[in-house]
Amino acid sequence: MSRLDFDFYESEDPVWNPALLTIPVPGIRKMVNLASTMDDVIHLSIGQPDAPAPPHVIQATVDALEAGQTGYTMDAGLPELLEALAEYNGERYGRAISPENILVTTGATEAIYLALTAVSAPGREFIVPDPAFMLYAPLIRMNGGEVRYIPTRAENNHQLDPQEVIDAIDTNTHAIILNSPSNPTGTVYPRETVEMIVQEAAYRGIYVISDEVYDHLVYDRDYAGVLSCCSDLDHVMIISSFSKTFSMAGMRIGWLIASQGAIRKLRRYHMFTTTVANTPCQWAGVAALRGDRSFIRDIISTYKARRDRLVQLVEQTPFLEGYVPDGAFYLFPALPEGVNGNNVALRLLRETGVCTIAGDTFGESCRNALRISYATSIDQIERAFERIIPWMEKQDFG
Amino acid sequence: MSRLDFDFYESEDPVWNPALLTIPVPGIRKMVNLASTMDDVIHLSIGQPDAPAPPHVIQATVDALEAGQTGYTMDAGLPELLEALAEYNGERYGRAISPENILVTTGATEAIYLALTAVSAPGREFIVPDPAFMLYAPLIRMNGGEVRYIPTRAENNHQLDPQEVIDAIDTNTHAIILNSPSNPTGTVYPRETVEMIVQEAAYRGIYVISDEVYDHLVYDRDYAGVLSCCSDLDHVMIISSFSKTFSMAGMRIGWLIASQGAIRKLRRYHMFTTTVANTPCQWAGVAALRGDRSFIRDIISTYKARRDRLVQLVEQTPFLEGYVPDGAFYLFPALPEGVNGNNVALRLLRETGVCTIAGDTFGESCRNALRISYATSIDQIERAFERIIPWMEKQDFG
Repeated sequence: MSRLDFDFYESEDPVWNPALLTIPVPGIRKMVNLASTMDDVIHLSIGQPDAPAPPHVIQATVDALEAGQTGYTMDAGLPELLEALAEYNGERYGRAISPENILVTTGATEAIYLALTAVSAPGREFIVPDPAFMLYAPLIRMNGGEVRYIPTRAENNHQLDPQEVIDAIDTNTHAIILNSPSNPTGTVYPRETVEMIVQEAAYRGIYVISDEVYDHLVYDRDYAGVLSCCSDLDHVMIISSFSKTFSMAGMRIGWLIASQGAIRKLRRYHMFTTTVANTPCQWAGVAALRGDRSFIRDIISTYKARRDRLVQLVEQTPFLEGYVPDGAFYLFPALPEGVNGNNVALRLLRETGVCTIAGDTFGESCRNALRISYATSIDQIERAFERIIPWMEKQDFG
Repeated sequence: MSRLDFDFYESEDPVWNPALLTIPVPGIRKMVNLASTMDDVIHLSIGQPDAPAPPHVIQATVDALEAGQTGYTMDAGLPELLEALAEYNGERYGRAISPENILVTTGATEAIYLALTAVSAPGREFIVPDPAFMLYAPLIRMNGGEVRYIPTRAENNHQLDPQEVIDAIDTNTHAIILNSPSNPTGTVYPRETVEMIVQEAAYRGIYVISDEVYDHLVYDRDYAGVLSCCSDLDHVMIISSFSKTFSMAGMRIGWLIASQGAIRKLRRYHMFTTTVANTPCQWAGVAALRGDRSFIRDIISTYKARRDRLVQLVEQTPFLEGYVPDGAFYLFPALPEGVNGNNVALRLLRETGVCTIAGDTFGESCRNALRISYATSIDQIERAFERIIPWMEKQDFG
């Protein structure tokens, strides 16, 4: 597992489906694998919460296991979880959601996989912010679709200009991908942005596929989920999961909300990808939604304090242009224009033992950026910058 | 969830990827949904063990949860599980297997999905026994591949003639799919069959993709797994899981064994479908392999007694041609030639409350068959045939 396979995808073996060539060399895995061969690494590369799941969630999973809940659930999910998700989303976004609008998946990843591969096809164009989570573009291209990137910049807090999105719509546009709060930028789109995009998409009959896995990790502002901005569900798919909100990443329970017709279609496809989601951990999801949710308030204040400290430290670092991200647990500062972020991330790891992720993992327009995760303690963040700042001072990126 | 959607896939909505049209109306779901609207149904339709998982497996999952094992594992799987699987498969099949030959998946379903979609492409032909588990053909066709069916018959115990498979190989043949013990027939291929196919495939440079999820449910005979019949791993993918052997279907842990190069490729693809498998249930898998395996011996003797009773009852049933299946927990008896098994299964359910699955769910050549599952008690099996036999006596299938 420590093996590095940088060049693997560059040679093509005729046994494979050529569509797999759209899967890129995994930037995160490459860095983490290299880090695993080194001593004394500080990880600012982490994509999952560092806290354990709440005790009542663990207890519900244990209770389900001890009650013999180890067989399959219904294909769309455990009925109790579908009910809980319908109520929770209905309350949160102020609209009626039925259990038949929901599919429970193996984490948000399977939901993203199903949504994108079920609608992508040759000749169809997908509008995707750049940078964006690295799953979207390969899954669109794997099925013959094309990606139209809308670049965002550190100097604008990586905000998406809704007019730019709308102007990019043409007759081949099939869907718009949103991800607020964003991985890798931590940017949260204001309500005006989401509403303007969702309403124009509905008017043009274009799907909005919204990855909202960081929907609770939002600091000092309201959250505009697509469910609170769309008039009906005909042209939206909303994806979220328990992973980030409840520190349940390894329990692999996510969900997708869409029209009942779309859910019926995706349910059937889901039987072919994974059959059903994990049964005891679906009970964990029921407990997370039905039980005490003060855990969320606590992690929000923890992440916010870390974010504030990270923003200060980035400000003190030569050559890094930061901003204040409003959500998730990432900051995506820019190096000077033209600097190769991939080289910087590799050298930073090799020369200081600090592991970040290079910007080109997340698209084409931010090759001079680094993704810094603050899903780690303030102490670790400070220790990392005690290495990064002196290292940057010695560089000459002019 | 009780909604019936028979005709859903027959109308096409332009939003979807046309490749999804290869997913058929789900025969099993249709029957189970209809049954869910009825009282007093006896299910001979069940595709998962009726026993709970062994107590030490449950305990290991509980221990993992309580130890905070709720984050992601490495992409290929939990290192302890990869080690345990390598040792277990190495011992069972008498050859060296490295952890780097293994990918842990969300049940065998994800492994089948990855294997078939990663190698299917337009112009490639796949040899598939008919009847076969209903995932194979749609996943091949979804990616542009073509299916060449090799029919098997109840009068030959649904044995596959290896010469017929070899004669079907042509220049477009890309892979051969094996599934022994078979779902839906319960047929176990003898070593000569597996060896002859695997060796010829290796000689011709054709992949053998072997779904061995019922590998422990084999009665009164040796089991010829592909790993014990192939000289190297260059042209094989072997899929299995904990679901059937250890009654862990809802825990969703399967695996795929292949060459290290193939595993590296599939590992990366797997990051895009589900990221990683469930963490606490991967610890369950470690306990299943490292702990006391007497559970397997006990379930084998339970299933064998049920199989023997079912074979007797089918013999006593007018119009049903049975045989003695050597594995899994299914029998796939034939009705007289030309009888529509789908109509019979529906009428049997509506008129007697016994739920079986129609043969056409599993392919094209056995529309006159029924799949009968014996993953239920002898008492339930006997009660079902107290209804089936008098019903059949009243039919006129001449």
